[in-house]
Amino acid sequence: MKIALIGCGTVGRGLLELINEKQLILTKKYNLDPIVSAISDPVVGSVYNEGGLDLNKILSLLETDNNIKNYSNGITGWDSLKTIKESNADVIVEATPTNLETGEPGLTHIRTALKSGKDVATTNKGPIALAYHELKALTLNNRCELRFEGTVLAGTPALNLALLPLAGIEIKEVRGIVNGTTNYILTRMESGMSYDEALREAQEKGYAEAKPDADVKGWDALAKIIIIANVLMGGNLKVVDVEREGIDGISKEDVEKALGNNKHWKLIARAWRGDGEIKASVSPKELSEDDPLARIMGVTNAINFTTDVLREVTISGPGAGKRETGFALLSDLIDINRFKEG
Amino acid sequence: MKIALIGCGTVGRGLLELINEKQLILTKKYNLDPIVSAISDPVVGSVYNEGGLDLNKILSLLETDNNIKNYSNGITGWDSLKTIKESNADVIVEATPTNLETGEPGLTHIRTALKSGKDVATTNKGPIALAYHELKALTLNNRCELRFEGTVLAGTPALNLALLPLAGIEIKEVRGIVNGTTNYILTRMESGMSYDEALREAQEKGYAEAKPDADVKGWDALAKIIIIANVLMGGNLKVVDVEREGIDGISKEDVEKALGNNKHWKLIARAWRGDGEIKASVSPKELSEDDPLARIMGVTNAINFTTDVLREVTISGPGAGKRETGFALLSDLIDINRFKEG
Repeated sequence: MKIALIGCGTVGRGLLELINEKQLILTKKYNLDPIVSAISDPVVGSVYNEGGLDLNKILSLLETDNNIKNYSNGITGWDSLKTIKESNADVIVEATPTNLETGEPGLTHIRTALKSGKDVATTNKGPIALAYHELKALTLNNRCELRFEGTVLAGTPALNLALLPLAGIEIKEVRGIVNGTTNYILTRMESGMSYDEALREAQEKGYAEAKPDADVKGWDALAKIIIIANVLMGGNLKVVDVEREGIDGISKEDVEKALGNNKHWKLIARAWRGDGEIKASVSPKELSEDDPLARIMGVTNAINFTTDVLREVTISGPGAGKRETGFALLSDLIDINRFKEG
Repeated sequence: MKIALIGCGTVGRGLLELINEKQLILTKKYNLDPIVSAISDPVVGSVYNEGGLDLNKILSLLETDNNIKNYSNGITGWDSLKTIKESNADVIVEATPTNLETGEPGLTHIRTALKSGKDVATTNKGPIALAYHELKALTLNNRCELRFEGTVLAGTPALNLALLPLAGIEIKEVRGIVNGTTNYILTRMESGMSYDEALREAQEKGYAEAKPDADVKGWDALAKIIIIANVLMGGNLKVVDVEREGIDGISKEDVEKALGNNKHWKLIARAWRGDGEIKASVSPKELSEDDPLARIMGVTNAINFTTDVLREVTISGPGAGKRETGFALLSDLIDINRFKEG
């Protein structure tokens, strides 16, 4: 399997590390021999070698220089689209940052790859939240695969849990804690902090950005619940269809009062069937102790599926992180390989 | 896909119902057209029709007569081995009862099927707990597939969670609440019942058998943790290798005392790496509130995986039931089909 990595930020580097470390087990256990033949990133640099790049060298350059401009053994300077179209990669790993308004540049990357008949694995929420049905049709027309486990809950199986071992189930409702930053803030508020104090601590720990709106106002959770609703429940939701309320209106007093009643405030992303169509919302909810999501604390994420045959199934695990999200890409690559060689 | 069902008890009937109800979605969404061409059961009866059995008719006979002896359109009287060897089935569904001492009759059924190059899906814990590595080798030699999701946690993805979306992960430790009966009893004891009262209630509700030893003494959990350890962690454990302690020594006072310390008694099946080998045990443990297994109540089951990249991932859901376990077989059939047509 020859891979081109488009976007070499935190997540892309996480994937490179895992491929490098797990090479033996991938070959032995999964009959997968991943060769990264191209990396293209506007900041880090671009290099292509049809025989494969030396990952030890690449990772060491990233460590020391924070770029790969001194990697000499290959063609340099190809931009993302040239890399997607002209490299020998069978699989494009798209790991550029999410843009929820346009989906770009990821959307053009993925469209271009699929139209060239190349498989795609991505962690970019924008293209999947905005254009899943279009991209799915492209995979069918061009007989190629699109995987995107890492767009929801990082490497903790959420989408692929529903698509693979739960294949055949009907999902009636999904409720999730899908944003670690807000869950961390709400957890810290349960120990007596104000919203502002908890936000500041989350920023100091690197869980929240300096401009925290994407998390605290629910935009990140909104992108994820659209993906869940459209991919797993057959919805056709757009950003404007989803009611959204963040956690920035939750006070220390709200949290204290809930705790006194054995309840916990959580930012819940929810998708359900109503009036013959799929609906979704993001809003803070008070959950009682017997709710399987009530005790999900800190940056841990969780999803609760209500189904026809199994009633409720809940999965929890990390929802962010360099290697945790890189692993989502690796598991997508393993599944593409398994599916193609079956 | 032509299927022979060997063993037509509760679980087999659950599968027949699901195939019958979900036919449309299976064809449309999973490109799977399952045709049950044979059923063989020493009590219910045996019938074979190479064109496929009428499931509506079969289910209606099972409902009214509790057997299929009045199903007239086919060859009757084939025993399980003749059905496995001489029917036109591509896939053998083995759903006979578990025997942890010999694995029979399931073990012979599965060996025979795999040696004939037929794929197998089973819910029978005996053969997998006793002979997984032998059966795995048979699948490799005969280029066929063996699936057994339903041997652990019924249809809640446990094994297939680890094997499919978590492919590529290293599992360092597994802890599970894998027996619903004992968890129900311990949950009811938290509301003040004695062990005997809670056991009696579980028996009245059909959760516990008249002779409850397989559950309360930990044998069922032992079979499941052997399967988990041998399949997911590369162990080679036999029944005698696993330390086992049931819940019948837990008193009302033990439970009360734990509750007073915000702890919960749970029967924990555990597998881990120690001294260079895989080990496993089944025993009651006091879990503190922040343990992801502490709040798993009633007949719900859960498994907590400690991994290299994702740290802890926990899944919970039903661990028993007619349709819940039948669904495990259905999801195995979907995966075999997906893998073979990839």
